[in-house]
Amino acid sequence: MMKLYDLAAAEPDRRFSPYCWRVKMALAHKGLAVETIPWRFTDKGAIAFSAQGRVPVLVDGERWVNDSWAIAEYLETTYADCPSLFGGASGRALSRFHNSWADAILGAGLIQHVVLDIWKHVAPQDRDYFRRSREERFGKPLEAVVADRDQRVLAFRESLAPLRLVLKAQKFLGGERPLYADYIVFGSFQWCRCISDFQLLAKDDPVYAWRERMLGLFDGLGAKAKGYPV
Amino acid sequence: MMKLYDLAAAEPDRRFSPYCWRVKMALAHKGLAVETIPWRFTDKGAIAFSAQGRVPVLVDGERWVNDSWAIAEYLETTYADCPSLFGGASGRALSRFHNSWADAILGAGLIQHVVLDIWKHVAPQDRDYFRRSREERFGKPLEAVVADRDQRVLAFRESLAPLRLVLKAQKFLGGERPLYADYIVFGSFQWCRCISDFQLLAKDDPVYAWRERMLGLFDGLGAKAKGYPV
Repeated sequence: MMKLYDLAAAEPDRRFSPYCWRVKMALAHKGLAVETIPWRFTDKGAIAFSAQGRVPVLVDGERWVNDSWAIAEYLETTYADCPSLFGGASGRALSRFHNSWADAILGAGLIQHVVLDIWKHVAPQDRDYFRRSREERFGKPLEAVVADRDQRVLAFRESLAPLRLVLKAQKFLGGERPLYADYIVFGSFQWCRCISDFQLLAKDDPVYAWRERMLGLFDGLGAKAKGYPV
Repeated sequence: MMKLYDLAAAEPDRRFSPYCWRVKMALAHKGLAVETIPWRFTDKGAIAFSAQGRVPVLVDGERWVNDSWAIAEYLETTYADCPSLFGGASGRALSRFHNSWADAILGAGLIQHVVLDIWKHVAPQDRDYFRRSREERFGKPLEAVVADRDQRVLAFRESLAPLRLVLKAQKFLGGERPLYADYIVFGSFQWCRCISDFQLLAKDDPVYAWRERMLGLFDGLGAKAKGYPV
């Protein structure tokens, strides 16, 4: 069985990396079983074989792959007979835009609401590293980053307009059925859901309804994960 | 030959609608000839047959289609033997995200830099309508909308991060070759190029290099159009 090094909080079954969620959903889409191994930010030794310091790292027999996009491409090529993640070469190229938007825009918007909640949940040995590295990035204390989130969330919701417009026209980003583009964006929301009780989405938002559909996929893989049902 | 009602400025050969550009590039991609008919905002009568008041409107024999996305779908279905605009059903569904991003984010960012230049170029009979409707939307004079564009363009360039990340990894949004997703985004930049000499993109930006590639497609269809080479 494949193994996935999967970012965990203090509780080993609270798994919150958006990038690891992309991979777990992709594996489920392909119908491939995986054993997930809880990993903490400071566990560099456990993935030293990959010659870098971040998860996800997927181990498939003698091979390993890191980086969620590279893993998705690996799975698509290696397990070509399983349901496609991209719907062809054009779909693969087009999905890069969803990936870039999720990384550069969506993730950057989300973290400003939940970064303190992440700190509260990470393993004791990760707390200093996490606070220091994120405060350096933001240039202020984590408490100050999230201080006005109740106001800022309204602008954040507006920033989801491109997503909302698509989901008014079709059920999934991939059309009638979800594709890897859906897992990319879902991963970011699932990151927050696993770690924060903050209400990011209004319940009458088409994005909320889509996220509910995503949570129910694969026998409720997302819904059953330890998190906050907001 | 098909006919396309195409938004024109005071000079009939200055064609600046982003949505019409999407269609013109899509027609060229399919290798389909078209006669374009200059149309002004106030020419409602000319397209009254379409029971709405905006271009693009494509007339193909006895049929007509309006709305750029609907036209792209029409061309893909009707001229299925010509090169595909989407690369399959998944690509079509995935391209909606590029379309929504271009409409909701890119277009909204661009217009704040060029709206006064548009007003300066539109036909005399369109000037009052254009100023009134846009000032109502912005809640201030067009001069005030663009007043600080030299500063704001830096944030605008940052907002292109999702596009830039893709174009660092591949030649076109569609991969090795352009697809309709490229024409969607290109249409927005071409809108500005046709109507404004404002330097929106830095010349060392991968987005600039991509736009240059787009301008050169189809024997320089975009490059030869009346506009400002910025």
